[in-house]
Amino acid sequence: MTSAPVALTLGDPAGVGPEITAKAWAELRKTGPCFFLIGDPQLAAAHGPVSPITAAEEAAGAFARGLPVLPVPLPSSARPGSPDPANAPAMIASIERAVVLALSGAASAVVTNPVSKAALYAAGFQHPGHTEFVAELVKDAPHSGPRGPVMMLAGGGLRVALVTIHLPLAEAIAALNAQRIIHAARVTHHALKTDFGVAAPRLALAGLNPHAGEGGALGREELEIVTPAAETLRAEGVVIAGPLPADTLFHEEARAKYDAVICLYHDQGLIPVKTLDFWGGVNVTLGLPVVRTSPDHGTGFDIAGKGAARPESLVAAIRMAAQIAAQRGR
Amino acid sequence: MTSAPVALTLGDPAGVGPEITAKAWAELRKTGPCFFLIGDPQLAAAHGPVSPITAAEEAAGAFARGLPVLPVPLPSSARPGSPDPANAPAMIASIERAVVLALSGAASAVVTNPVSKAALYAAGFQHPGHTEFVAELVKDAPHSGPRGPVMMLAGGGLRVALVTIHLPLAEAIAALNAQRIIHAARVTHHALKTDFGVAAPRLALAGLNPHAGEGGALGREELEIVTPAAETLRAEGVVIAGPLPADTLFHEEARAKYDAVICLYHDQGLIPVKTLDFWGGVNVTLGLPVVRTSPDHGTGFDIAGKGAARPESLVAAIRMAAQIAAQRGR
Repeated sequence: MTSAPVALTLGDPAGVGPEITAKAWAELRKTGPCFFLIGDPQLAAAHGPVSPITAAEEAAGAFARGLPVLPVPLPSSARPGSPDPANAPAMIASIERAVVLALSGAASAVVTNPVSKAALYAAGFQHPGHTEFVAELVKDAPHSGPRGPVMMLAGGGLRVALVTIHLPLAEAIAALNAQRIIHAARVTHHALKTDFGVAAPRLALAGLNPHAGEGGALGREELEIVTPAAETLRAEGVVIAGPLPADTLFHEEARAKYDAVICLYHDQGLIPVKTLDFWGGVNVTLGLPVVRTSPDHGTGFDIAGKGAARPESLVAAIRMAAQIAAQRGR
Repeated sequence: MTSAPVALTLGDPAGVGPEITAKAWAELRKTGPCFFLIGDPQLAAAHGPVSPITAAEEAAGAFARGLPVLPVPLPSSARPGSPDPANAPAMIASIERAVVLALSGAASAVVTNPVSKAALYAAGFQHPGHTEFVAELVKDAPHSGPRGPVMMLAGGGLRVALVTIHLPLAEAIAALNAQRIIHAARVTHHALKTDFGVAAPRLALAGLNPHAGEGGALGREELEIVTPAAETLRAEGVVIAGPLPADTLFHEEARAKYDAVICLYHDQGLIPVKTLDFWGGVNVTLGLPVVRTSPDHGTGFDIAGKGAARPESLVAAIRMAAQIAAQRGR
């Protein structure tokens, strides 16, 4: 049986999305995995050959000739670098359609092109971000295992899952508690088995403070929050080392000792992933009934329309989405 | 004229210091740079050949035969893994002697073996750490340029200087202000010229929050503290980019754009250095009248005496100390 194609969303049409989508198709057309865009055929055709389709099932047959596009026309024509709230409903509709197709099995996975929150908010979007919106859309669908969303970044041979994400650093520290750490670790542990084929996952847990607090001399969060969370996890059978000093966790020999690191704040996880693999990192949403990945960069309004955008991260996101879907048997 | 030898301090004799010192001598004996230990000849002899000396000037002639050791006998014999406060006075005397020799020119630079603060404190040591103690010892010596100490970590083709160091993360955020950032940047800018031979230094400045605060949406420190500091520095002629998102600063292409990064907290700087070069990173103290470097690891009490300690960081620290001294014309 051939697996279903990956659904790729429109993203912000004023960003680098249309350009990297065409480049990703050119890169993957011969090797696969097969994917299709849910977006504007005319915009897509400005960047490369297009194969219009009317259903996801047609994507496989059309893929070799051109980028398969399931149409969601734009109300306003896109101008690179100038986001237009008039196009926000199309951006949202594309995400909704991709999720519906993934829930039905017509698509194997959802890959989202970058959106700008500002443009979505101007159109009345009510969710904190892309990830939360996808999670909301699938909240009534059954899911085996602990439910996310938990954000994972994968690249350079490293997987990091985040306990806190888009918070000012001082607020991330204030928001830290054992329940959040335990939740992120449980979702990650389960996803390593179901999505990444790791039979017996090994986690590492980063500390918050320099030297992981050095026994309390450099901060008490490790003693009061992080270590108790790790002990709870170990008591339920999760193999998790730490809390360990964050600066000792990411070199090659350290990476060989775990399958994923639980990081406590955004830059603690993203600095090492992007140091090792700036262009090819993938954002994976763990713990949802649908498989969802995205490139780990933004809309790139400043470089949109100049031909300079690099597709590595989107290509890696499409490949990883297809791999995870295959692991799940989708 | 031959340059003076590098003075290496005893460090904690119960840690990996004696072992890595012998290994560093074996690695450098044929190539140099020449260095000598200020420590216990008997302890050193247990790890390799020793050439006892009575003055720094004898080190060059003795170096090929064995590790030159200027004697500071230990009151209590060292037991690997079991630090003994009785030896703290010898550890302190070794640092003092190294600094005196470097100030006089008899030594070109000071490299410090790792110490344990707990053992020093138990013996009545009054300074926050090694670096502050060295700074105190040289506070009356003349120094051209802004005075540190500022801690730099160098490794993997990357140099990072820290605005805050050994503080709990929440306290580091609370302690952040424009003056601290400006001071660290001024000292680093000057040191790049005098110590690293960079004629026109280019600095990059990391933001504190995810995405460097995203215009205030993810934190206000960039708007209120970091950007004003950068503007003050630029107004006085320092070339400094940022504040930039910390996760975009450390990959290969980013590293080509600056000579050093000013980081706001410990792990922001140490995560990328140790991800890129875990074993060979060097701690350099900027802005002092004497050149001082050290390996970027601790005493390693847990592995001391087992023969497993790796000397790369100490070797790199000795090489870098000699290079900086040569830049300064010592």
